[in-house]
Amino acid sequence: MSDASGMMPACPLPHAHRDVITMAHGGGGSLMHRLIEQVFMAGFSNPALEERHDAARLQVGSGAVAFTTDSYVIQPLIFPGGDIGSLAVHGTVNDLAMAGARPLYLSAGFILEEGLPVELLTQIVRSMRAAADAAGVQLVTGDTKVINRRGNHGVASGGDGMFINTAGIGLIEHNLTIGPRQVHPRDCIVVNGDLGRHGIAVMAVREGIEFETAILSDSAPVAAAVLDLIAAGVAVHCLRDLTRGGLVSAANEIAECSGFSARLDEAAIPVREDVRGACELLGFDPLYVANEGRFIAYVPPEHVEKALDVLRAHARDTRPAMIGTVTDEKPVRVTLDSRIGAPRILDRLSGEQLPRIC
Amino acid sequence: MSDASGMMPACPLPHAHRDVITMAHGGGGSLMHRLIEQVFMAGFSNPALEERHDAARLQVGSGAVAFTTDSYVIQPLIFPGGDIGSLAVHGTVNDLAMAGARPLYLSAGFILEEGLPVELLTQIVRSMRAAADAAGVQLVTGDTKVINRRGNHGVASGGDGMFINTAGIGLIEHNLTIGPRQVHPRDCIVVNGDLGRHGIAVMAVREGIEFETAILSDSAPVAAAVLDLIAAGVAVHCLRDLTRGGLVSAANEIAECSGFSARLDEAAIPVREDVRGACELLGFDPLYVANEGRFIAYVPPEHVEKALDVLRAHARDTRPAMIGTVTDEKPVRVTLDSRIGAPRILDRLSGEQLPRIC
Repeated sequence: MSDASGMMPACPLPHAHRDVITMAHGGGGSLMHRLIEQVFMAGFSNPALEERHDAARLQVGSGAVAFTTDSYVIQPLIFPGGDIGSLAVHGTVNDLAMAGARPLYLSAGFILEEGLPVELLTQIVRSMRAAADAAGVQLVTGDTKVINRRGNHGVASGGDGMFINTAGIGLIEHNLTIGPRQVHPRDCIVVNGDLGRHGIAVMAVREGIEFETAILSDSAPVAAAVLDLIAAGVAVHCLRDLTRGGLVSAANEIAECSGFSARLDEAAIPVREDVRGACELLGFDPLYVANEGRFIAYVPPEHVEKALDVLRAHARDTRPAMIGTVTDEKPVRVTLDSRIGAPRILDRLSGEQLPRIC
Repeated sequence: MSDASGMMPACPLPHAHRDVITMAHGGGGSLMHRLIEQVFMAGFSNPALEERHDAARLQVGSGAVAFTTDSYVIQPLIFPGGDIGSLAVHGTVNDLAMAGARPLYLSAGFILEEGLPVELLTQIVRSMRAAADAAGVQLVTGDTKVINRRGNHGVASGGDGMFINTAGIGLIEHNLTIGPRQVHPRDCIVVNGDLGRHGIAVMAVREGIEFETAILSDSAPVAAAVLDLIAAGVAVHCLRDLTRGGLVSAANEIAECSGFSARLDEAAIPVREDVRGACELLGFDPLYVANEGRFIAYVPPEHVEKALDVLRAHARDTRPAMIGTVTDEKPVRVTLDSRIGAPRILDRLSGEQLPRIC
């Protein structure tokens, strides 16, 4: 403070303490990762949180329970193939599924901007109810807050603002331990369908772009597929849904946590031609684009065929695939074997480089 | 739409469908009540939700579990006696306590406005952690989203915006059924302390008013007091925390749900002199002002003294009191026996008339 030279930084705090939150902190990239580690993990540290799962695994009385939460701030509220209401159900149900849990109950916290039409709210509530019924969960508790109208600096420029938080409880009925620490070299990585549809569907509306073919969000519940994998006896080592930051962010998180590298095969990763074209137009890499009905499962090589059979039975208009393997290559990283040229390292991007589709 | 006379309403939808959300819908009054009934209850109806508890009572495996959620949108983020972080812990812990549950786990969903200083966020996270430790709960799962900076129409005019949702899981370890339907005529209504401090502490900061004595928020966890009531053998019929809408809204909700009237005794309701003075200055009735560490318990007359003994053991700088009784007077309503003059009917107010302290 008394440094008058102008040469020294005025504030000796660690870097993060002089920072302000930027949009990039919410993008699912490395900036967000740092925020979570430095602020939230450091502040709340406890064993359940440190598992870094999509859902916490807890003991409640005599039962093993999964517990998770997610807030939904997507704009526009309604997009091709879904809306903020169905998304708020699918996203949280899917986080429970990633712990191998049977989703049972959801809470819903609504933050409504003044000016929101009650009819639009009613439509979104109906969509949530339908999504909950389809996913086999009950919405059992809720809360509503109203906030002042946002000014014209925000995406929500008045009358169309609404955030939804859902938390979910699921029951863990199996004895598997599912998580990055269960990942072994030689594990195979399978995905339950093609990538990028949700992100492109949302971005297209925002940018006012129309494609020749309709690209609808892949938003869907995946719990039934996961429970069937387990019921079929597939030794599921790790599961991760491919939301913010897409496939690459999920694969990097698992690599970092497990201590093992992943090698992905570009030719095997399913991306629809129209989505690939839209990504080129918009300047995105489909491997980084958010999905809301896609997940990867790490399974032993001898269970790949069985896993793909189960996933195919749940796939609607898409094709599950084996897309890569786990290796013990060092340093730990995620590599893409390309169609042409040398293997490419797939780094976790910072938030600025990621399309923002929350 | 084709009505050109201008005489007929253009839209024949029910009233609520032409409405837009107003700040009053969030105030805890009759408008909010209507929104919840017409939109949320109608949309999500199921037995757990229809109990209209602060927390849902659920069966998870072999255990009885309470589940609740609340979003916190308070401005300013830091206020005398607390901040949005400690409030987000206390509020949700207290909702679990209102089901007679032992709070175990919390989730935290952060919605951060771009521009928020990371140092402020860190301070609030530390406060949450301290509040969780003091209340005996663990924060085990979380989520972070970042939203665009709000314009100058909002309370959060840039750089100081942050919403927190917490959901909570608690274990129900007793065999009591606690809820409005258990309320009987002759039940006595006890409160665990004086009313109005939280609301006045927040409003004073907002209005830039300083009082001769410091008025700090009453924000605090009450679960230990509730669990001790049950452990002491008090037949707790109903519990309700006195948040948005204050004592009158809580008493009216219980009266409506139970089908029995309540008669409150003005002289017995504890309100500090400085809070009463501040309420007069600001134009509020302390019986409608929000509290964050106060609740009412409905107990049989023969258990009042035992209940007050337990509450006194948990009271810090305040005095629990018996403030009224349940009657079978019809029509069902909440009445205040005043110090002077005739009894006064305490109606649920619409949101506009309530101080907005969320």
